[in-house]
Amino acid sequence: MKNNYCVIMAGGVGSRFWPFSTNNRPKQFLDFFGTGKSLLRMTFERFRDVVPVENVYVVTNAAYKDTVKGQLPELSDNQVLLEPMRRNTAPCIAYATYKIRETNAEANIIVVPSDHLITNETEYVRVVKEGLRFVSLNDSILTLGMKPTRPETGYGYIQIGTGGGELRKVKTFTEKPNAEMAKIFYESGEFYWNSGMFLWRADVVVKAFESLLPDVAEKFEAGREYYNTEREQAFIDRIYPLCPNISIDYGIMEKASNVYVMMSDFGWSDLGTWSSLYDLSAKDWDGNAVLKCNAGLYGCQNNIIALPKGKFAVIDGLEGYLVAEEGDVLLICKKDDEAKIRQFVKDAGERYGDKYI
Amino acid sequence: MKNNYCVIMAGGVGSRFWPFSTNNRPKQFLDFFGTGKSLLRMTFERFRDVVPVENVYVVTNAAYKDTVKGQLPELSDNQVLLEPMRRNTAPCIAYATYKIRETNAEANIIVVPSDHLITNETEYVRVVKEGLRFVSLNDSILTLGMKPTRPETGYGYIQIGTGGGELRKVKTFTEKPNAEMAKIFYESGEFYWNSGMFLWRADVVVKAFESLLPDVAEKFEAGREYYNTEREQAFIDRIYPLCPNISIDYGIMEKASNVYVMMSDFGWSDLGTWSSLYDLSAKDWDGNAVLKCNAGLYGCQNNIIALPKGKFAVIDGLEGYLVAEEGDVLLICKKDDEAKIRQFVKDAGERYGDKYI
Repeated sequence: MKNNYCVIMAGGVGSRFWPFSTNNRPKQFLDFFGTGKSLLRMTFERFRDVVPVENVYVVTNAAYKDTVKGQLPELSDNQVLLEPMRRNTAPCIAYATYKIRETNAEANIIVVPSDHLITNETEYVRVVKEGLRFVSLNDSILTLGMKPTRPETGYGYIQIGTGGGELRKVKTFTEKPNAEMAKIFYESGEFYWNSGMFLWRADVVVKAFESLLPDVAEKFEAGREYYNTEREQAFIDRIYPLCPNISIDYGIMEKASNVYVMMSDFGWSDLGTWSSLYDLSAKDWDGNAVLKCNAGLYGCQNNIIALPKGKFAVIDGLEGYLVAEEGDVLLICKKDDEAKIRQFVKDAGERYGDKYI
Repeated sequence: MKNNYCVIMAGGVGSRFWPFSTNNRPKQFLDFFGTGKSLLRMTFERFRDVVPVENVYVVTNAAYKDTVKGQLPELSDNQVLLEPMRRNTAPCIAYATYKIRETNAEANIIVVPSDHLITNETEYVRVVKEGLRFVSLNDSILTLGMKPTRPETGYGYIQIGTGGGELRKVKTFTEKPNAEMAKIFYESGEFYWNSGMFLWRADVVVKAFESLLPDVAEKFEAGREYYNTEREQAFIDRIYPLCPNISIDYGIMEKASNVYVMMSDFGWSDLGTWSSLYDLSAKDWDGNAVLKCNAGLYGCQNNIIALPKGKFAVIDGLEGYLVAEEGDVLLICKKDDEAKIRQFVKDAGERYGDKYI
């Protein structure tokens, strides 16, 4: 276990859960389910029995430093990596990998988003342990593919190839499909959802960066004398702006030849939309999901109601709506019109500046 | 002017504006329009040029004493009359009248509710002055009839009789009519809305109580030695429970023979329902009335949105709804389904006790 490392990516902003999430309060820092724990905290605790606490690293935006340290007081300053700006996942992962390699050249690393939901933690832990064992023994990149439960068009898919058991060679990564294609993928049994979780050894991923993203590799290689020193942040602040804005999927996964997928099924959602949250939530007989608050619902079907704890909503005659309140903002809209939320946020920003977003 | 007195009835509870109004925060004490003044305060200030401030009396429930004194710091303790319990308008008016008569036997009194809206204050003041002049010269009871602007079924009507100018003998008082009858009333030009505002001399109304509600008269007559003394409250607390629960309309107005009506037109609403508030409010081009808060409305028609000041609502695709929030309660329902609000309040009380009502 001492060679196991975890990198939690917690730099996202994202307005899809507005007004629940805002620029100052991105999704990963929210107590989504009223359990008293943020998604980040839940992600962190999942590795309790897999990775020593001193081997857990969080990469976040410099602006969220205090939030991360507040939610994960177990971490030292050296374990909270601060991006001076957003540069997508490839630079983020390169930073963490190069830094960890300086500490432990034999590190087995799992990289995970900080804002996903996993419902079967026992199975998740089993899969992750098995995956870390696999990458410790093989010069391979491993990704976790989620067994699809519906023909979802909101996720990318991974086509599985040859191999035995739950571990397969990846045949191809696909973009988010249209509805027709999603149905074919779903029914084929050959396609798994791309969860954005990756496992590899530090030396393997460094080699992948060197061959597939050499200009990124070069930049982070130049920092070997700075990692884990007081000069690390200044170094990062200097090279980060020069990094390309590129995802690990596009930069590495889709191009590397040694990529494997573990066919997993541990109850996963990226909590990408209010609808996905609705799908996951307990509902009353009329299909209403009430989160955190109390509600008296009359003639209401298939709504999702999310008000702050202690609030009481009385709603009569709504069907298929989202009613969400946080801070000074109340949002009422059709719960499937989520593309609109981005517009609402944009409009609010134009009218009121940063006040409500 | 020194003989002019005003009695403001401020003892109402009422759940029709829930969650805006609650048991602890009845409508008259609310800053309805976000102007910084409660309806009670607005009512009080309307008499600025008609009644000396020391001649203004407020009758309220003992539970609201501090609220009244807080909103009307100009009043002395002797001007805030406390009912130990609700007993409708006849005992309330008898109390104030008998008390005022002890101070000034020639008092001309106007009795008004504390929770109505008047939009043309100049005309109101003219009407009230004219009315007080009339009752000072005549042994008559005068009521203010509102020129109807629509065939409203939510108000009682007064049929006007003989007389000249704006002052007429009352032919009959009617209950709230059905829609068909309201249309006939409205089109006839002979029917005015009963506003619940009365003007009379103290001695005239005492005589009316003596002949029409003798058991009420007897009780308050017995207090002559207590009014305006330290023993007044104990006396009231003793006799109030013994009073019948009866309205001044039923007990006096409908039965007295010397009742006149002043045909008035000063922009009046009893603010009895969310719909009446909607009718009075400024609306956008799509018929949405937004009170106090900010709102971004998309595909919304004919809604009334009332959130606390500083709140921001984004609403998409609602038509004809009420969205109201106050304290810990959010209410969303069809704005014309107001009878239901009483049910919502009742249900909330059964589930959560007094917490939300």
